[in-house]
Amino acid sequence: WYGGASVRGQSWPINDQNATTKLFTVSDLKDNPSGYGSALERYFLGSSGVAVFVSPDIPLQLGLDSRQQFCLQSLPSMERLPLQYTVCVAHNVRAAHQEAMQQLSQHPRELPNMKTLWLPFWKLLAKVDSGPKVERELRTFSNRLRRHQLGEGVISLNEHSTNLLSDMDHDYLNSRKRGISKRLSRDLPLVKLLNISITLSPFLGVDTRQFHASLTDGTEDYWLSLPSTPQGQLIPVMSHWRGTFCVKLNITNPGAVSWFLDRVESLQAHLGMEYIMLEGGEGNLFEEQTLRPPEALSGDRYIRLLADVATRMGDSTIVTAGTRSSHKPLFVRMTPLQSDWSPMGLKGIIPSLLHHTLLGYNFLIPDAVGGSLSGDLVTDEELFIRWLEIVAFLPVISFHTPPWVCGEDRVLNLTRALVAKHQRDVVPLIEKYAEEWRLTGNPIYRPMWWLSPSDPVTFTIDDQFLIGDEVLVAPVVEKGAVRRDIYLPDGGFQWQDSRSAQVFDGGTSLQDYPVPLEDVAVFIRRS
Amino acid sequence: WYGGASVRGQSWPINDQNATTKLFTVSDLKDNPSGYGSALERYFLGSSGVAVFVSPDIPLQLGLDSRQQFCLQSLPSMERLPLQYTVCVAHNVRAAHQEAMQQLSQHPRELPNMKTLWLPFWKLLAKVDSGPKVERELRTFSNRLRRHQLGEGVISLNEHSTNLLSDMDHDYLNSRKRGISKRLSRDLPLVKLLNISITLSPFLGVDTRQFHASLTDGTEDYWLSLPSTPQGQLIPVMSHWRGTFCVKLNITNPGAVSWFLDRVESLQAHLGMEYIMLEGGEGNLFEEQTLRPPEALSGDRYIRLLADVATRMGDSTIVTAGTRSSHKPLFVRMTPLQSDWSPMGLKGIIPSLLHHTLLGYNFLIPDAVGGSLSGDLVTDEELFIRWLEIVAFLPVISFHTPPWVCGEDRVLNLTRALVAKHQRDVVPLIEKYAEEWRLTGNPIYRPMWWLSPSDPVTFTIDDQFLIGDEVLVAPVVEKGAVRRDIYLPDGGFQWQDSRSAQVFDGGTSLQDYPVPLEDVAVFIRRS
Repeated sequence: WYGGASVRGQSWPINDQNATTKLFTVSDLKDNPSGYGSALERYFLGSSGVAVFVSPDIPLQLGLDSRQQFCLQSLPSMERLPLQYTVCVAHNVRAAHQEAMQQLSQHPRELPNMKTLWLPFWKLLAKVDSGPKVERELRTFSNRLRRHQLGEGVISLNEHSTNLLSDMDHDYLNSRKRGISKRLSRDLPLVKLLNISITLSPFLGVDTRQFHASLTDGTEDYWLSLPSTPQGQLIPVMSHWRGTFCVKLNITNPGAVSWFLDRVESLQAHLGMEYIMLEGGEGNLFEEQTLRPPEALSGDRYIRLLADVATRMGDSTIVTAGTRSSHKPLFVRMTPLQSDWSPMGLKGIIPSLLHHTLLGYNFLIPDAVGGSLSGDLVTDEELFIRWLEIVAFLPVISFHTPPWVCGEDRVLNLTRALVAKHQRDVVPLIEKYAEEWRLTGNPIYRPMWWLSPSDPVTFTIDDQFLIGDEVLVAPVVEKGAVRRDIYLPDGGFQWQDSRSAQVFDGGTSLQDYPVPLEDVAVFIRRS
Repeated sequence: WYGGASVRGQSWPINDQNATTKLFTVSDLKDNPSGYGSALERYFLGSSGVAVFVSPDIPLQLGLDSRQQFCLQSLPSMERLPLQYTVCVAHNVRAAHQEAMQQLSQHPRELPNMKTLWLPFWKLLAKVDSGPKVERELRTFSNRLRRHQLGEGVISLNEHSTNLLSDMDHDYLNSRKRGISKRLSRDLPLVKLLNISITLSPFLGVDTRQFHASLTDGTEDYWLSLPSTPQGQLIPVMSHWRGTFCVKLNITNPGAVSWFLDRVESLQAHLGMEYIMLEGGEGNLFEEQTLRPPEALSGDRYIRLLADVATRMGDSTIVTAGTRSSHKPLFVRMTPLQSDWSPMGLKGIIPSLLHHTLLGYNFLIPDAVGGSLSGDLVTDEELFIRWLEIVAFLPVISFHTPPWVCGEDRVLNLTRALVAKHQRDVVPLIEKYAEEWRLTGNPIYRPMWWLSPSDPVTFTIDDQFLIGDEVLVAPVVEKGAVRRDIYLPDGGFQWQDSRSAQVFDGGTSLQDYPVPLEDVAVFIRRS
């Protein structure tokens, strides 16, 4: 079986995932490691050619057990809603998926800003406490990228740095009103010269002046609230986000959404950023506190509404989760991974890639090279290199640990080479298959069974992937390995090793095929 | 029937109160005019000599209807708890009440600070926005009281003024640390020279630095909270108090209670106040937002726990509501009344007095002379005088509208005279019967039927009251009236008019007995 939701330690297929029966809604895997995660659809695909989809608005629980079953259950509730689902049988798994896609996605598919694929994302690692310091760090980091000849890229700021920068802007505006210091008015244009991405969330700290202003203004309904008797006063519900107590934007209130979008626009005017990472849509604030959500925000409706807001912010917006939004022109960031070789780390990348694209989320940004879950810098050079070799073939390369920190010149050289390879070879290929996806719904990245959907060998291959149906990538995912087994699927055509130009028949299993550390096995289909 | 809960427009007996069936818990009648109010016991007394009491911990609803019934109902819930009640029958209403008191109050009764009875309370009417301004207003007001020869009294500050004063103190401490301005260090001792009462509540504004400090300190469990999945993080629940968004002290957390008591102690050290009004214990923050409260805070347990905290603050603490706390050494402030002659105004004082004392709440502070619900100053001189004539016989006289504002010298002279009369005649009487209450549980203030419990005429008299069993007070409660009917209960003794020295037999009904505006009809029992 394939499909369903992302989990920590993604597997492909999902049969071996063990999960107790629990609510099937999008949650933040960082906070909730045993939950269901960021890319979630009520869609399950069986290798025998069966597709199951469950109607969207019924509260649903899902359990997976090692007897290779999955178990769907409607929530015990007062209403006793019956479980409604559709089963669709086709002559093979690919046909079932293609048919299911027609059923599932009624909306025209739109491409996000494809220019984004050209630029690696670099995380700004700034532990500072003021806007001017963030700005200084930004300039230093940008100079460093230039000095290391790493070419053009996007420097990404986390939410804390974004807040510091935007508060600086606020202070600047205030000071201008008061006619004081003009220092900042000279500095912000420098930020505008850089290509940055900022991070926003629908959360607002309960200690912020904006929140207190809204309470005084009588716009407390801008935040998710509950009515209170006897007067029916709306009382905002607090929650916890990134270690602070916050309230969350009431996304069903048009005034609140306008306020949020105005804020984005004013940031755009002052910081000139092109990319916005929108975090924090996961989870149901009400259900987390066992409160009864309003009908319009039951289940995972918040994240669906947030995808609409994200779309209104432009086609370069990156969201961290999605359900029923794969047709929108958005990027999706994959859940952070561990800096190791386990399925929670490097070995999880390809299953996660295949999972996302099967559900239609093609424009994904894999976790930073080497993994970023712990927040620590990566020191394992081999892990860094092997990770980079995989993500060079994915839509966007992103860095947390800079290559000059992780290793010697070898790492830096390889980074330059693989970024260049990505731009030269991979991006055009993605562009080609993005167009196919837009027209047909076929995923850009495909599992081995796409080409030989009746060959059981292909059903469990979780360390190779196809770009479209012409390039097969088989990276090394084992620590210390310089050889690996590769299966070239049958389809009445041949495969050519892109390095040695050697040609193999489809259906061949290559044993211990050599793949040195600085190399990736890539095969091109020859018709 | 008598007993149950206070309501807006209290009546004696309760038969004519119409109330739809609703939760029988203590709420703030100011915010919830149709709710059950400040003094509440699960105790009902019938004039035929029947007492009913309902076991304390079962969620209970009460309805009263005009067919002179009351209807108790346990709450429809998952647990389907049965309604548990005890019925106690005696040969008359007084005997039933005395028996019921033995059953109800297992705790030894304690007297609050009886010195309080001597001092009228004067509300400081300060609409200012800083601590120093509050202080200035305090001194001005104190000088004014002296100029008008109104004798010793307590000046009471509302919560806003209290916060301003204590923040001033905070600024003072800060500035002392920084070694700046010592201006405030000269000023605060002046506040200490005055006899003031301050107002506190278990609420803390979400915009205060104390609240944000507690979130940063990890003491978010100092506030009423709900756990949040998946991490079990406690999330404080916001609520609304006096127009601002607040969190409420988690009174089940000993750390939180210590923090609160420490704050009181530090205020005591810096402001030297003897009296503390503790507001805001009413209501159930969880149930108001249809949240499920923790077991320890279901129903009206908050107000019960708050009475314990109030007791730890000293025996001069004034609470605004009570249930099962009548034995504690506390004062109870009656719900504010309208500035008119209706049962919501002046006519409600005596029914409310009889209700409170029947439930054991003898040490009550009636609403300010002329009524204070609207917050406006009283301009009706007659209302002011008639009101003053009633409360002069109650435990504590309190003022909102100063007499020099309401009327001419006549009002001021009468105020001086009645305050003096209260101190000279009433207080010793209260002290005597307070001792009897402590020993036997008999109320200090008694309805007419106390002396002739089998005489049906006495059951509905709601405009006369007894102090102990020796003084009968019959104030005028009708606008414009200078005569009234008075019923002198039978009990085998005579009554002497304290003004004319005329003597009447018990059982006499005096028609149109003259009671001029500046006079109260008071009869002394002669054995």
